[in-house]
Amino acid sequence: MPTLNEEQHDQTQEHLTAVAQLIESDDALLPLKSMLKGLSAIEIANLIESSPPNSKKIIWNLVSETKHAKVLQALNDDVAAGFVETMDSQTVADITESLEVDDVADILQQLPDQVIQKILSAMSAQNRARIETVLSFEEDSAGGLMDTNIITIRPRLTLDVVLRYLRRHDEIPASTDQLFVVNASNKYLGVLSMSQLLTSDPSTTVKTLMVEDEAIPVTMDDAEVAQRFKQNGWISAPVIDAEGMILGRITIDDVVDVIIEDADHSFMSMAGLDEDEDTFAPLKKTAPRRAIWLGINLITAIIASSVINLFQDTIDKVVALAVLMPIVASMGGVAGSQTLTVVIRGIALGKIGSSNRKWLLTREVLTGLLNGLLWASVLGLFTAWWFDDFTMAIIIWLATTINLIAAAIGGTLLPSALKRMGIDPALAGSVALTTLTDVVGFMAFLGLATFFYA
Amino acid sequence: MPTLNEEQHDQTQEHLTAVAQLIESDDALLPLKSMLKGLSAIEIANLIESSPPNSKKIIWNLVSETKHAKVLQALNDDVAAGFVETMDSQTVADITESLEVDDVADILQQLPDQVIQKILSAMSAQNRARIETVLSFEEDSAGGLMDTNIITIRPRLTLDVVLRYLRRHDEIPASTDQLFVVNASNKYLGVLSMSQLLTSDPSTTVKTLMVEDEAIPVTMDDAEVAQRFKQNGWISAPVIDAEGMILGRITIDDVVDVIIEDADHSFMSMAGLDEDEDTFAPLKKTAPRRAIWLGINLITAIIASSVINLFQDTIDKVVALAVLMPIVASMGGVAGSQTLTVVIRGIALGKIGSSNRKWLLTREVLTGLLNGLLWASVLGLFTAWWFDDFTMAIIIWLATTINLIAAAIGGTLLPSALKRMGIDPALAGSVALTTLTDVVGFMAFLGLATFFYA
Repeated sequence: MPTLNEEQHDQTQEHLTAVAQLIESDDALLPLKSMLKGLSAIEIANLIESSPPNSKKIIWNLVSETKHAKVLQALNDDVAAGFVETMDSQTVADITESLEVDDVADILQQLPDQVIQKILSAMSAQNRARIETVLSFEEDSAGGLMDTNIITIRPRLTLDVVLRYLRRHDEIPASTDQLFVVNASNKYLGVLSMSQLLTSDPSTTVKTLMVEDEAIPVTMDDAEVAQRFKQNGWISAPVIDAEGMILGRITIDDVVDVIIEDADHSFMSMAGLDEDEDTFAPLKKTAPRRAIWLGINLITAIIASSVINLFQDTIDKVVALAVLMPIVASMGGVAGSQTLTVVIRGIALGKIGSSNRKWLLTREVLTGLLNGLLWASVLGLFTAWWFDDFTMAIIIWLATTINLIAAAIGGTLLPSALKRMGIDPALAGSVALTTLTDVVGFMAFLGLATFFYA
Repeated sequence: MPTLNEEQHDQTQEHLTAVAQLIESDDALLPLKSMLKGLSAIEIANLIESSPPNSKKIIWNLVSETKHAKVLQALNDDVAAGFVETMDSQTVADITESLEVDDVADILQQLPDQVIQKILSAMSAQNRARIETVLSFEEDSAGGLMDTNIITIRPRLTLDVVLRYLRRHDEIPASTDQLFVVNASNKYLGVLSMSQLLTSDPSTTVKTLMVEDEAIPVTMDDAEVAQRFKQNGWISAPVIDAEGMILGRITIDDVVDVIIEDADHSFMSMAGLDEDEDTFAPLKKTAPRRAIWLGINLITAIIASSVINLFQDTIDKVVALAVLMPIVASMGGVAGSQTLTVVIRGIALGKIGSSNRKWLLTREVLTGLLNGLLWASVLGLFTAWWFDDFTMAIIIWLATTINLIAAAIGGTLLPSALKRMGIDPALAGSVALTTLTDVVGFMAFLGLATFFYA
């Protein structure tokens, strides 16, 4: 995720401190209101997102209504939807007129169905129709990303006519790097780049210059749309339905949002969290979300402990085993999380499959083996010195090496296995792998000890 | 990170399987060469990135030279630099003529200084000057991202003259959504959007339409550049030096790369890995990189174990403690990693500072307390049943609750503390926090046990 610079960060923090002080001194809502007047919509959105739930509402209510639309657009969808829910349907409908269709759809999709219906029915017929089109597609599909505000031209026009046609517009939609060429029944034929339009002879026809560039099917998954944009360096791309009719276009700014969301998803999932989690979400939202993950971990921890339980007699005999066993499990856990991270990223980038999995497995196992030889030996020597017990040193050396190899195998194979079962490896991978390395670590260490000390 | 769709993924995998088979049957280099002819530069780059080190070289050597430039551009910088290093300087110099300046700089920056000098001296004077300009700036600054190929115009021209001037170009650089207005000494004055150029009266002057939009200082950090692009919805932005002279422009495609790199950095750092790590890097590169992290973990694991060592007598008396103690540590570890992930993201987005840290800390501690009451109680009841020992149930209940609260405090405060010490919280946070939750978990559980069973 992009990191804010110190200066900007300090600015938000400065505003926050001021706001916090103003909110605490009850009577100071007027100064707060005048302070908000001096901030841009983006600064206000940053301020709201960085505030605890109660202050969020106070700030929002003091923002001047003319800024409501822009602030909503800049806010995280979850937070924006929270405000929209408390507003009058007619007010919301009016605000949405000035927003991009796909942004309105993103916010509405967070709301309950009756609220959406109420807001839609308060809209003008034209606005409602545009938004209903986008809402009819899956949120994470090309249809959910697209903007229906596009400029189309016919192939038989000359550039001169096109230029005159453009001049009749008040403005051209942002990020317009190409015009879309369609036939009389709105079927997509190709694109005419602005570069061609501006550098070619005005008497040339669109047809001779247009490029039959690939269009995006409206049902395409948003992650794939992002990949296409990245690979082709697109600024905008046309979206078509199954019959090849043009429906709208997707622009790079929406694709950037998809990329950031996907990255957030991977990052947050590794800790069992949701990428939509708002940093300052209220306790009643965070506590239940986290409880589930802790519950799952409790079960896996009990599984690992039941392995130790098998060896109570051995531990009773040599209590130093209890001291050392977490080290074996921990080394396996760290090595496993490294392999897992590399493999999950490789899978997400589409680089790992049946043809190269064997090579990767070999490299990971050899990495585990080499690091096993290195660190297990260091650990073994340390143990021999600490407990003055050479047998223990051999046991921990062997057990750690075994666990590093198990971590390499598990870390390489688990993610694909989980994926085949329809489980998100970024979400479930680390819990599953930690259970594996705990079980193998305790089993190897205590099992070997039972054998040697019996 | 963006996830490839199944179809594309299968395609790369299909190619990979074919390539792997061809490489194994020594004589089949001709069929492999003809297969590569049918693939686009992007497909070839995908194929190379998904291949083990030896196959990488074989494939590269079979790619037709006319495609070399485009494949290099599509490859990850690390891999691209590897190939460039083995090529003749003159060949590299020729190839770079057709690439964007910032892409060439990215690849060259991965190479040793003498190699860079050799390649630069083989270039044409003009090309060398352009690349040296970009190379003179930090790789992760605005200067390292910028492209020097821009169109500038003077304020006193009419749009009609500008349009005629553009028509003299063969093509306009990609992603040109605005022209940069400069004075006679190349000082940046403002931008003229293509939309204005195309929709306004041709007799208007640039001066009346141009917008004095913010320019990016050449030394600005790339993460901040990305943030500006995101907040302002820019497609391109001018880059200026300290005197306000225009040096080049940054386009959104380079910003997308920065965003993806930053996201990769956070994701990989959490496992102590480098975001440049190539999935199929050779063993001799991966093993040493991972060894350092395992070594650090070994030290922290020994610290946790030395806590257990203090309580050998107690464990000797009640061996069930050895069975249960990893559960206490593990629950703390998971709760801590959740808090840590939320806080690290919040810091990266610039949302957490002195004004709201207290609120966040309170929420996290309450979350820990609530989940402690829930899961520690479940664990306590389970323990009472498993070991038929009510004292043990009370001990584990208390110890787990204490550890969840410690995890909440540590997870909230550690990242900012590390950042203030100049240490990357994404890199060091999870090791530091796991050490804390292990130490607190063992200390609380075994300490309480020593008190109750003494």
